[in-house]
Amino acid sequence: MTHSVAILGASGYTGAELVRLIATHKGMRIAALSAHSKAGQEMEEVFPHLRHLDLPRLTTVEETPLNGVDLVFCALPHATSQRIVANLPEGVKVVDLSADFRLRDPAEYERWYGKPHAAPELQKEAVYGLTEFYRDEIRAARLVAGTGCNAATGHFALRPLIAGGLIGLDDIVLDLKCAVSGAGRSLKGHLLHAELSEGYFAYGLGSTHRHLGEFDQEFSAVAGREVRIQFTPHLMPANRGILATAYVSGDAAACHAALSAAYADEPFLHVLPIGQAPGVKDVRGSNFCHIGVVADRKPGRAVVVAVLDNLTKGSSGQAIQNANLMLGIEETEGLMLAPLVP
Amino acid sequence: MTHSVAILGASGYTGAELVRLIATHKGMRIAALSAHSKAGQEMEEVFPHLRHLDLPRLTTVEETPLNGVDLVFCALPHATSQRIVANLPEGVKVVDLSADFRLRDPAEYERWYGKPHAAPELQKEAVYGLTEFYRDEIRAARLVAGTGCNAATGHFALRPLIAGGLIGLDDIVLDLKCAVSGAGRSLKGHLLHAELSEGYFAYGLGSTHRHLGEFDQEFSAVAGREVRIQFTPHLMPANRGILATAYVSGDAAACHAALSAAYADEPFLHVLPIGQAPGVKDVRGSNFCHIGVVADRKPGRAVVVAVLDNLTKGSSGQAIQNANLMLGIEETEGLMLAPLVP
Amino acid sequence: MTHSVAILGASGYTGAELVRLIATHKGMRIAALSAHSKAGQEMEEVFPHLRHLDLPRLTTVEETPLNGVDLVFCALPHATSQRIVANLPEGVKVVDLSADFRLRDPAEYERWYGKPHAAPELQKEAVYGLTEFYRDEIRAARLVAGTGCNAATGHFALRPLIAGGLIGLDDIVLDLKCAVSGAGRSLKGHLLHAELSEGYFAYGLGSTHRHLGEFDQEFSAVAGREVRIQFTPHLMPANRGILATAYVSGDAAACHAALSAAYADEPFLHVLPIGQAPGVKDVRGSNFCHIGVVADRKPGRAVVVAVLDNLTKGSSGQAIQNANLMLGIEETEGLMLAPLVP
Amino acid sequence: MTHSVAILGASGYTGAELVRLIATHKGMRIAALSAHSKAGQEMEEVFPHLRHLDLPRLTTVEETPLNGVDLVFCALPHATSQRIVANLPEGVKVVDLSADFRLRDPAEYERWYGKPHAAPELQKEAVYGLTEFYRDEIRAARLVAGTGCNAATGHFALRPLIAGGLIGLDDIVLDLKCAVSGAGRSLKGHLLHAELSEGYFAYGLGSTHRHLGEFDQEFSAVAGREVRIQFTPHLMPANRGILATAYVSGDAAACHAALSAAYADEPFLHVLPIGQAPGVKDVRGSNFCHIGVVADRKPGRAVVVAVLDNLTKGSSGQAIQNANLMLGIEETEGLMLAPLVP
Repeated sequence: MTHSVAILGASGYTGAELVRLIATHKGMRIAALSAHSKAGQEMEEVFPHLRHLDLPRLTTVEETPLNGVDLVFCALPHATSQRIVANLPEGVKVVDLSADFRLRDPAEYERWYGKPHAAPELQKEAVYGLTEFYRDEIRAARLVAGTGCNAATGHFALRPLIAGGLIGLDDIVLDLKCAVSGAGRSLKGHLLHAELSEGYFAYGLGSTHRHLGEFDQEFSAVAGREVRIQFTPHLMPANRGILATAYVSGDAAACHAALSAAYADEPFLHVLPIGQAPGVKDVRGSNFCHIGVVADRKPGRAVVVAVLDNLTKGSSGQAIQNANLMLGIEETEGLMLAPLVP
Repeated sequence: MTHSVAILGASGYTGAELVRLIATHKGMRIAALSAHSKAGQEMEEVFPHLRHLDLPRLTTVEETPLNGVDLVFCALPHATSQRIVANLPEGVKVVDLSADFRLRDPAEYERWYGKPHAAPELQKEAVYGLTEFYRDEIRAARLVAGTGCNAATGHFALRPLIAGGLIGLDDIVLDLKCAVSGAGRSLKGHLLHAELSEGYFAYGLGSTHRHLGEFDQEFSAVAGREVRIQFTPHLMPANRGILATAYVSGDAAACHAALSAAYADEPFLHVLPIGQAPGVKDVRGSNFCHIGVVADRKPGRAVVVAVLDNLTKGSSGQAIQNANLMLGIEETEGLMLAPLVP
Repeated sequence: MTHSVAILGASGYTGAELVRLIATHKGMRIAALSAHSKAGQEMEEVFPHLRHLDLPRLTTVEETPLNGVDLVFCALPHATSQRIVANLPEGVKVVDLSADFRLRDPAEYERWYGKPHAAPELQKEAVYGLTEFYRDEIRAARLVAGTGCNAATGHFALRPLIAGGLIGLDDIVLDLKCAVSGAGRSLKGHLLHAELSEGYFAYGLGSTHRHLGEFDQEFSAVAGREVRIQFTPHLMPANRGILATAYVSGDAAACHAALSAAYADEPFLHVLPIGQAPGVKDVRGSNFCHIGVVADRKPGRAVVVAVLDNLTKGSSGQAIQNANLMLGIEETEGLMLAPLVP
Repeated sequence: MTHSVAILGASGYTGAELVRLIATHKGMRIAALSAHSKAGQEMEEVFPHLRHLDLPRLTTVEETPLNGVDLVFCALPHATSQRIVANLPEGVKVVDLSADFRLRDPAEYERWYGKPHAAPELQKEAVYGLTEFYRDEIRAARLVAGTGCNAATGHFALRPLIAGGLIGLDDIVLDLKCAVSGAGRSLKGHLLHAELSEGYFAYGLGSTHRHLGEFDQEFSAVAGREVRIQFTPHLMPANRGILATAYVSGDAAACHAALSAAYADEPFLHVLPIGQAPGVKDVRGSNFCHIGVVADRKPGRAVVVAVLDNLTKGSSGQAIQNANLMLGIEETEGLMLAPLVP
């Protein structure tokens, strides 16, 4: 059975990535595509690499035909999404890729995003879309909130260690290296090739990046006490991929065992032999996440390295994985594409 | 029905690309993988991005079990291939990705490759693997010779124009821009990141590149007279993709019409509206080839631009397309993956 | 003696490159810097890499103090420049880096730039800033028009061959590969890292790029008849550098001899031994231009390859070279910096 | 007065960088260049970007004429250097760029480099070449050991903080992002463009990188007790530049004040306003190091970010800075070149 889906916000990178993945998905059919500023155009005018596909013409959100649509992927900008989702037909399921429904606490939302939430009931209803840890809730959900791509990487590296009480909670340092597509397709000076190529720099310094709200919420929940990590993302001269280097207090062998056990049956999460660490190209263009654990020369200290593709496992691949669960499709359908190397 | 295939030379880029594509192919199963210098290792030690796949351990060519194998992909170095192919079991079909069987004339082979061919009978038997132009022969063949990746790009841009008598044959200029994976994974100074990144340069200057042998052979055959084009490849600071810019004498509208007609039913070849030209990222990681035609301000002069991914349509994707035909599988099976952008 | 100079339009790449070069120039002192949208800021806020220099604060053009300034570098956008230059104090010398004064014929200007010139008298007065060919005129000039960076590359490759009657004038093909800084620092989608990295494409197809106006003007002048070349620029995934590949009818040895003779005493132009060709990284960050000539396998056909850094020899370095002549400073002063490799 | 210098090991990147910098240096003249495997060639055959310079032909080390040479730059591989330096003429000063003389303790050397030192007396004599902290010793030295490029970056970020007792000594985490030229020009698989471009990964995990020996030695010395930091370098898809992100316990304002005071009179070290952090492109191709300090949201935690060009301030620029001191030349001579942006 093929399910009918719509993508709102199809002219951004997460939108295009959804189309790429659905193109070879057996259980989904794209019924509608919206893109506000490009309404009226064909998708191939916006993304020529999708020329070979037979896709609906781009529409405004308002004009997007949602009759008969089983599930909507919302790949809209933050803050826009909450207004749109609130007005979708009741019966339709929603996977939201924005930041709008990630935080459960309205106060936390306001603190990190600077204004009150426009749809607090939906915020309450939304399930946090970290598939491997919320599988049952996602299966039953009407509205799933895709995680931040940085957040997903950190969660996969650290969550079982925090939940298992294996690492100190007060000195976790998470240093991320993020490719530029994570910042989207917007026209900003620092995203220009001439500015970024052959360069790299830290941003969100001092643990001010918004994805920290997700770490605070989730890590505190599994630890049963407040957890506040130190987190610095760095922008890389590359298009896809996040590499997280976590510095923790704890026994490396125990950490490795815990991660191996937690992900033993996971189709997308692979833990390397202890002492080895992955690189971002190992997962480029795929829904896989590779994780390594290495003991430091300092006794009782370990390093955990996790990599994923921010547009796939960190965003649109995760969205389809969640949609598969919500629609009763095999969880891995459409997502077993091998990484693109080189 | 699933066919059993082997890949000889699996530790190079074309070998890895074959594995990537077969990973989601419904009609093929990898029964054996050889890699001389890496024999005994697991594929994931050589290519960690293939960690999620259940693959046979790497063997030497001699030890590779070929019983029950329906087809062998030879992704071995030039000159090595002809010796290996000559010793394969009789019944097995072969798609060769090296340069060894591309030229039909032994004298031409010796001229371009510097020594006599070691298996001239096989050379005679081999079918030139330019799928869209040799489909029937490939279906019936036991041995198919994959084309050069540069050659494929030039053929798609020019062959119908030459065959149709639409362009002058004495002043064809073909300027190619080739990504670095076309040079393989060998350790050469000019392939280092520090040497190539932010740089680009011409090579094979003066029309001395070996792929010219293929142009000479094919263009002369379709023209019914000797055709010698001018051809300069340039190495690009990029991993995948070939962009060919052809400068020809001829009417742009007629050229565009001829290409559009020739490729109207081709699943992988897309001709853009006249006046538009594609970029290499439009086809990255896919088996598609996009082609554009633009009239020059000089009357009677036109520019044809073609792009493809050297590792896919230019090599391993083409190989699978040919293998599909040889094995009686749907020609597009395993090859409809959308390009990876960004 | 130190000359006082001002830079109008200092927040773009050519402005920053002027500052970089003047930083170690013995005969110039930066008295004023304008940047319309950044007026009031310090230069280091716009270009942190210039933090170590003691520079005047950015002003609007109107507020820029030009008293005592000997020479103004105008690094303003096309069309803006002609209005600003017309209002500069009479005595001040001007090197303009825009396209505004490159074409001598008002009709040609209007044809390529789409509207009439606002200062036709200045257009007439301006000297074309191709230093090696207009040295005497530049020395005496009040207003010098910097050449297009693509144009400069093509001129160095071809001008002596056309002037010497060594190549056919009706079948010249010039295929350029241009780094992205040539497009400036403006916010355009195709200049984003995620769009351009690992990609490349042709633009200005069909010989419609504006720099053709300069080729038409100059090549026709030296040939004594109308010359119309075919010219396609391609955007490269790199920040600096232009590589021109010219395909010509003519004897390679004669072409090589002519270029070698023409540039024998030029400090910045280097002709390689015949049969060799340069790469763009050989000149990155420098004022040098390297040129190679190779005979094609087709008798009577040759390939000429020229490389330069679009921001240095193609723009700001050229501007300083011209300013040195205009101010009576040694021509090479400040410009002998070696290329940056890797 | 011009001093005569020789460069041993001129065919590597640090050798070429020395030539680049000396090309515009007023007080040095290159009298000899050695490069074992390239002996007999001209430098421009190995590095075409140096074509414009009049340089001595490459020789073997043994044949390199050192009569009248005031100072030798040894840019030889690790372990080779100690044998060569031991045999240099007595009177000649030496700046060594290898790792051979960085560690004062023979036991530490053997532990990090795996075999006993071949010239322990020279090891004792050598001065650690961290110019800003060993200025007087360097002025008087005959043999100066250039620091590791990673080590230099970490020292500039942390040394004044450790010396001042401003940060906790037991939980220092140093996460480095290093460009590929730091690995030299050797032919290794992971340094290929196709392997590294669009990729990045950690190496030397678990604090096993050799530059830790330098951190241990120096940080323990200034702290007056054993200091062992955690340190992970990451290889970046870029050619030049190191960005160090240090996570420390301490008051950000106090750290910022200490760094500002320590470097107030340093020509090459620039501390940014508190709360700001530099990017690597801000220093590309220059001898500058920029440093930023930001307070974390966690009270009592701070982040220090330092950037430098590994080939310039991290290696060859530092070497010339030291040589200037040793030869009585102005310390900044030849080193005030502005960074190359973009």
